[in-house]
Amino acid sequence: MKKHNFSAGPAILPPSVIKQATQAVENFNDLGLSILEVSHRGPDFVAALDEAIQSTKDLLGLGDEFEVLFLTGGASTQFFMSAMNLLGQDELACYVDTGTWSTKAIKEAKLFGKVEVLASSKEANFNYIPKDYSIPSNAKYLHLTSNNTIYGTQYRELPATDIPIVCDMSSDIFSRPIDPKRYAMIYAGAQKNLGPAGTTLVIIRKDILGKVDRVIPTMLDYRTHINKNSSFNTPPVYPIYVCMLTMRWLKEMGGVEAMQKHNEAKAAILYDEIDRNPLFSGTAAVEDRSLMNVCFTINKPALEKEFMDICTAAGCSGIKGHRSVGGFRASIYNAMPKESIEVLVNLMKKFAEQHA
Amino acid sequence: MKKHNFSAGPAILPPSVIKQATQAVENFNDLGLSILEVSHRGPDFVAALDEAIQSTKDLLGLGDEFEVLFLTGGASTQFFMSAMNLLGQDELACYVDTGTWSTKAIKEAKLFGKVEVLASSKEANFNYIPKDYSIPSNAKYLHLTSNNTIYGTQYRELPATDIPIVCDMSSDIFSRPIDPKRYAMIYAGAQKNLGPAGTTLVIIRKDILGKVDRVIPTMLDYRTHINKNSSFNTPPVYPIYVCMLTMRWLKEMGGVEAMQKHNEAKAAILYDEIDRNPLFSGTAAVEDRSLMNVCFTINKPALEKEFMDICTAAGCSGIKGHRSVGGFRASIYNAMPKESIEVLVNLMKKFAEQHA
Repeated sequence: MKKHNFSAGPAILPPSVIKQATQAVENFNDLGLSILEVSHRGPDFVAALDEAIQSTKDLLGLGDEFEVLFLTGGASTQFFMSAMNLLGQDELACYVDTGTWSTKAIKEAKLFGKVEVLASSKEANFNYIPKDYSIPSNAKYLHLTSNNTIYGTQYRELPATDIPIVCDMSSDIFSRPIDPKRYAMIYAGAQKNLGPAGTTLVIIRKDILGKVDRVIPTMLDYRTHINKNSSFNTPPVYPIYVCMLTMRWLKEMGGVEAMQKHNEAKAAILYDEIDRNPLFSGTAAVEDRSLMNVCFTINKPALEKEFMDICTAAGCSGIKGHRSVGGFRASIYNAMPKESIEVLVNLMKKFAEQHA
Repeated sequence: MKKHNFSAGPAILPPSVIKQATQAVENFNDLGLSILEVSHRGPDFVAALDEAIQSTKDLLGLGDEFEVLFLTGGASTQFFMSAMNLLGQDELACYVDTGTWSTKAIKEAKLFGKVEVLASSKEANFNYIPKDYSIPSNAKYLHLTSNNTIYGTQYRELPATDIPIVCDMSSDIFSRPIDPKRYAMIYAGAQKNLGPAGTTLVIIRKDILGKVDRVIPTMLDYRTHINKNSSFNTPPVYPIYVCMLTMRWLKEMGGVEAMQKHNEAKAAILYDEIDRNPLFSGTAAVEDRSLMNVCFTINKPALEKEFMDICTAAGCSGIKGHRSVGGFRASIYNAMPKESIEVLVNLMKKFAEQHA
């Protein structure tokens, strides 16, 4: 049975990427060796790493002022590493709290400098993106979480400010164009829109580094990895390789502009059904709805398990909502085909008719 | 042509592991999904992670006082993270400097406490393991690098001491039995004897944690990962899965006791030829020769390139020595079959006859 993978992350990858990723484990570039057992300093992997870095720059339109790194440790490591590298002990960083991941980023940044939480939607279980706040002009940076996987909210516009933004884009990187000039740093765990779990993309403006005077262990200093092209130590070879394949696919699909159109069209199919169908309700504020994670509940809670079972029986997996929101969550990242969303929408239609 | 993979790391894995690792990328556990796109909290990966942890305990005979973690960032991250978690600012840690990786571990530890380098073989380009030193009784721990990949040296016996040992076993973990009672902590990047690049095994005695009073970011505190069974954040799913497969293979092969016998027999074939063949010389002190990395040079340097070309033509890859030692290095980890070593030895024999 064909599976429709609505997992929040690790998440769906394009079938053509899975095919090439399988081949590389069996026999990488026809070398007679698996990609799992070749040197990270050999020409075949170095070419893949270089392509991954160049594709990141191409897809996002990054200028030479940016460096692209493939690190490890997830966004959770960037929560503290960004503050450790960018924020002096007496300097101010501003954060907007839009959910679990923002909250964790705030907690770690407080270890390294002054942190002001400008706004939070916690009182509404993070079901909207706060917009009404002013940003102190002395802030070193403003930290945002561009898409909130758990709550299904996403920034449609950045706040109007000249303060450089540090942004956790783990769950919507490469889903739409960005304006690089607005950012000091972007980071993203790979396992949603980019590749498998095991590597973290870090995009950083070189000129903001080297301005704090604390001691930083070698592996935690971004300059170490910039100077060694993400190969100071053995990088996570296979996860980076699969990210490179995914970015090659993204380029073939028309890049992030085309991807945004696809994503808007895909999300509209599902949100339209949620709004039309009397049995289901969206949980996020309409103007902040995420194009990546669509959260909804069933208006007759007694039917929740039955609908979940129907989804599972139809091959729709990963659709259970996060425990802090409940209900359902359909994650529809770049690689999710329209056809899978239509399968889900048809299940919703039929279920509502049966229980009218 | 069959390849004989003598790479120092990432390194050879058993063919049966590569086969299963390929299958899992194509269709994991017959779920209809790739292992690259399933949730790290789903039952199939949780079972694999639990098996990897249990197999580590089984293979090394670890008691309940030890915790087993699968982290990221390589041994290079453990260089600072071990000292950050274990060494108070005014406490003493002792190190033996047996090469590049020890030197890096020493550099990072100095950021967190007092460090005494008890002995070094630097003056002899690290071609032996220092043995003549005394260990201060107030040392919090003694740090050793059990096998030195670059120089082809390996501890055959641990120093006689009651001080708990912190050991970088990146390049010989699971190659022989160990006495767990001697260790406070063991760490190992996966990409030599354990699996592909992208995860780091950390084995740590619980009772030594929580005794330093510095602030530690959440992701750098071992207790975070102990409390969440290595899944505080998304772990490197696929690298951990392949480590689990390799450990399953190790158990089928008879465990680390059987592996030590295999490794001794395999290394003897190559060292015997190096000692017999008038054209080649070993670079490491005989009593400290590594069973994992066999370093040797050619006595007529003008012939070096020709022999390298002959090796390449015969399918022997990864045999070039590290630039800091020169010559050749045959890495013959657990998964290296005797037959591949015999191919190399026959090339050495023939080459010497031709140039007699």
